[in-house]
Amino acid sequence: MPFDAPTPRTRINRLPKRGDYSQETIYGILDAAFICHVGFVVEGQPYVIPTSYGRAGDTLYLHGSAASRMLRTLAGGVDLCVTVTLLDGIVLARSAFHHSMNYRSVVILGKAAPVEGDAAKTEAMRVIVEQIVPGRWEHVRKPSAQELKATAVLSLPIDEASAKLRTGPPLDEEEDYALALWAGVLPLATRAGELIPDPRLHANAAQIPEHIERIRKRFGSAA
Amino acid sequence: MPFDAPTPRTRINRLPKRGDYSQETIYGILDAAFICHVGFVVEGQPYVIPTSYGRAGDTLYLHGSAASRMLRTLAGGVDLCVTVTLLDGIVLARSAFHHSMNYRSVVILGKAAPVEGDAAKTEAMRVIVEQIVPGRWEHVRKPSAQELKATAVLSLPIDEASAKLRTGPPLDEEEDYALALWAGVLPLATRAGELIPDPRLHANAAQIPEHIERIRKRFGSAA
Repeated sequence: MPFDAPTPRTRINRLPKRGDYSQETIYGILDAAFICHVGFVVEGQPYVIPTSYGRAGDTLYLHGSAASRMLRTLAGGVDLCVTVTLLDGIVLARSAFHHSMNYRSVVILGKAAPVEGDAAKTEAMRVIVEQIVPGRWEHVRKPSAQELKATAVLSLPIDEASAKLRTGPPLDEEEDYALALWAGVLPLATRAGELIPDPRLHANAAQIPEHIERIRKRFGSAA
Repeated sequence: MPFDAPTPRTRINRLPKRGDYSQETIYGILDAAFICHVGFVVEGQPYVIPTSYGRAGDTLYLHGSAASRMLRTLAGGVDLCVTVTLLDGIVLARSAFHHSMNYRSVVILGKAAPVEGDAAKTEAMRVIVEQIVPGRWEHVRKPSAQELKATAVLSLPIDEASAKLRTGPPLDEEEDYALALWAGVLPLATRAGELIPDPRLHANAAQIPEHIERIRKRFGSAA
């Protein structure tokens, strides 16, 4: 668990009690999400781009078009930052100042390396698809040689990382608890709506597969 | 509408049909969210940090502790990137390769400037609180002089920005439509759970105010 000890770059300086460097916490947050924001620098300008990812062991996989600027930039081994954020609620305090969010976030710093070879690229693509919808990979057509060529896959070691979390009720100034103002938390979560079958769904594919039922349940009823 | 014409830095090169530079689209996405990811560079290393924001006209406001590294760095007028992402669904194609997300995102590039003076800072904090929960500001205790001093507020002009969107069903290879595999979209959205009143709620504050009922409805039943 190399990130049990933060580096000077991943140490949580602001509100350090919200910081967590345990592998369990960091992997738990990474495994509960599938969208990250990737930060990289081109000619001094930072860019932040949302993209999907998958985790396998201590490796995070990213992918995209081999033609994309982001993938070409990252494949060059530049410094990058991957941030994963789960928003858990709005914290409604008695004072404007103490309004906050409940959240879980992970920041990973490092350099990515291209995943080379069709077998390794296919496996990384499997990890990403399975991160989003477990069970999906076995159900669908696997990447062709041409599709593998069109896809850039990157691996990022998860070895310089930190988590930051806030949970619980508002923390108001002691004298403000005497105010007759409503305070509390509005929990928020990502939830699924009704499945929208493809308009061109094959007549023999109308039955909703079990892995789709499972992902619906995962994003099921609100807390 | 200065960003109706993209700059070379905000032009969508990859899948340009997903790009949109209209003020209406960009403001619409910014107004539908309240969390952004801010990218900035310290000693060559990019960092991406989630934070809340508020929009007023062509200005985006950010705030945080005056002691935070991010706020101190950004106040120095460095190049930054603010990205707002709304995840709308998982696109389940017949091929692994064509899996995708439905989403709306905005990328803003620029430099932030500190908001100075108690009146201007208070107004920016009002914009941020109202972005998250409209009607909240009037309900709560306003910032004290001490709280204003502890808060750094930044303004970022929204003048170099782009939006990127994907909607609709999967787009599979023509021959794959003959496969009897389930395909479609699982819509996703941020939804509210049951309100959690503060354990120390004042006896005369049990009634849920109208602005809280409104925000519950905004994040109400799944699509």
